[in-house]
Amino acid sequence: MLTLRTSPASPFGRKVKIAAALLGLSDKIELVDADTTSPTDTLRQQNPLGKIPALILENGETLYDSRVIVDYLDHLAGGGVIPTGWERFAALRQQALADGLMDAALLQVYEGRWRAEDKREPKWVEHQQGKVQRALDYAEAHLSTPSTTIHIGHITLACALGYLDLRMAGKWRESYPKLVAWLADFEARVPAFAKTKFTA
Amino acid sequence: MLTLRTSPASPFGRKVKIAAALLGLSDKIELVDADTTSPTDTLRQQNPLGKIPALILENGETLYDSRVIVDYLDHLAGGGVIPTGWERFAALRQQALADGLMDAALLQVYEGRWRAEDKREPKWVEHQQGKVQRALDYAEAHLSTPSTTIHIGHITLACALGYLDLRMAGKWRESYPKLVAWLADFEARVPAFAKTKFTA
Repeated sequence: MLTLRTSPASPFGRKVKIAAALLGLSDKIELVDADTTSPTDTLRQQNPLGKIPALILENGETLYDSRVIVDYLDHLAGGGVIPTGWERFAALRQQALADGLMDAALLQVYEGRWRAEDKREPKWVEHQQGKVQRALDYAEAHLSTPSTTIHIGHITLACALGYLDLRMAGKWRESYPKLVAWLADFEARVPAFAKTKFTA
Repeated sequence: MLTLRTSPASPFGRKVKIAAALLGLSDKIELVDADTTSPTDTLRQQNPLGKIPALILENGETLYDSRVIVDYLDHLAGGGVIPTGWERFAALRQQALADGLMDAALLQVYEGRWRAEDKREPKWVEHQQGKVQRALDYAEAHLSTPSTTIHIGHITLACALGYLDLRMAGKWRESYPKLVAWLADFEARVPAFAKTKFTA
């Protein structure tokens, strides 16, 4: 049995859960919540960065971060969510874009969570929001067609959009009609997406 | 010819430059500085996140981020900095740890660069510094011996320590004697490390 340290709202943890489901590995993974802000949570022994997700293997070794975990699970399953050939790099690039989108959204959420109002810096928030918007613009213009096989780039993009739904009230939906349709199609094809949805 | 958009001080760009050198690909890569804060720099067309490094291929496609670029260069060279078997996941985990250390150090640098003094939040800086310290503690205790073949985990750790030298006056050196010796050994074995050193 593998153990995944994560939290229900983590978009990076969601990536791993959906990848595991598509790879047929969900039954081999036990989910154990982690509190990233608690110094006494064992998470900091498992991952010195204190970040989720972290995957604990049967021999006690821990793997992080989400990209490394997905790479490992894909290897365990003999492939499935990381393509080969040029498509590999296109998929990994799309994962990097969507990871970057999530990071930029997360930094905006942290601005509110870690700082009193007088310590917030609008220029910083705007800088992060610029990354989110340009990533969405790019995805809207360059989406791979929904008919292709689901890969880690698609999974991560779906989790990034889901995170914007959760934390930014789905405002992106007003401006990106192709992405809205793309996500609806993804949700219809990947039951694990709805199953891993967190509602605050 | 490949084009690497980066800046002399970027630790993530340095990773790519050192990996390229070890893979024998330096001569095939032209370095072109990028300004991540400028809206008119072509970087934002090349990478919507506006982050460096980004690698422009001969067919006009761009790859990002540093992990994806290193994966691609390793593939181009037929392997060399990303091991196989279990060692692959240990190396990728070490890369993730050192990337996370660099991110946490960078966020502390940005706290000073983006905010007036009254908008800085000591608890946030402390939270990031905790990640840096735990990552250093872990590396000090679990370093792979310097006799092993150099892989992307080593390269990234060296760049992370180099970044702490550059931006945090090398204070880490007082508390981590094994890491100091490890870095000296790395520097002696990898000439590209000294060659890519940036001094402000």
